[in-house]
Amino acid sequence: MPVKPKILNCQEVARSRLFRVQQVDLRFSNGEERVYERLASGSHAAVIVVPMLDEDTVLLIREYGVGIEDYELGLPKGRVEPNEDSLEAANRELMEEVGYGAKSLQNLKLLSQSPAYMQHHTQIVLAQNLYPQTAEGDEPEPLIVEPFKLSQLDELVAREDLTEARSIAALYMAKAFLKS
Amino acid sequence: MPVKPKILNCQEVARSRLFRVQQVDLRFSNGEERVYERLASGSHAAVIVVPMLDEDTVLLIREYGVGIEDYELGLPKGRVEPNEDSLEAANRELMEEVGYGAKSLQNLKLLSQSPAYMQHHTQIVLAQNLYPQTAEGDEPEPLIVEPFKLSQLDELVAREDLTEARSIAALYMAKAFLKS
Repeated sequence: MPVKPKILNCQEVARSRLFRVQQVDLRFSNGEERVYERLASGSHAAVIVVPMLDEDTVLLIREYGVGIEDYELGLPKGRVEPNEDSLEAANRELMEEVGYGAKSLQNLKLLSQSPAYMQHHTQIVLAQNLYPQTAEGDEPEPLIVEPFKLSQLDELVAREDLTEARSIAALYMAKAFLKS
Repeated sequence: MPVKPKILNCQEVARSRLFRVQQVDLRFSNGEERVYERLASGSHAAVIVVPMLDEDTVLLIREYGVGIEDYELGLPKGRVEPNEDSLEAANRELMEEVGYGAKSLQNLKLLSQSPAYMQHHTQIVLAQNLYPQTAEGDEPEPLIVEPFKLSQLDELVAREDLTEARSIAALYMAKAFLKS
């Protein structure tokens, strides 16, 4: 494993209500120096939930994303609140966004999004043994829940209305896990 | 398909050398109003390249990411420059980061990263029929290139030093494409 660069300086250079940008001055082990920028995350990770209605049926939601200015299919997601662990956060998001609770929840993988530019991590949580249960969320409108088959995952991810890298990675990892 | 919310206002609220944050005021079709923030991207997408040395061997790079402050395995990536299309950008990044050119390049899927918070898109490009060819990049140190087998992809993505959602999604989609 290579020797990590030394962080010479790290300072905030921009901030908004949601985002903080840090400038990081680095010296690599070969003496090269670079000034990079990254998005800082809070201390809490996010979760992305793979809700299995039965052993082949996964529930996706159709939700508006202002980043891409369109409705997209994806897995339910959300922040882990300070008083929660990832499994508790996953179950809460599942109730708020999909209308189910899960009797069985397990962590599959901790994802990063863009290791060069973002500190953020997202825990994939597999949710099984679902039961109807809703919880009040902060969604501006009810989300549309749609069932799909993991046995037809290649066709699902080829759709133009399912593009998010985390959802695609989580669906493939859940399918591999359930098959093994 | 639901009716998209109306964008009432969009303004920049923070900016740094690399990042621009916009505040977007929305009115959903049911009358609910929300104020969201998103990261704006430039007009150009990024590419992530799946370089196949043979029909089962994919080449990954080990690179330092200041976001996570560690070295990680991942696929080569980079920005599409103004004078390039995604295939040209993929071939250039492949030469700069991996030391190969590709005689065969094809787009597999346009990924988003976080539809609610980011405008960014990344094109997955499958690169085949490789030949040794280097090009000068802006990397601060030489990248370490390591071969892995798509036939052992589940074991590969279980590694703690491979976490990026886009790399995992691209590897699974390339494997499915090559199998079909």
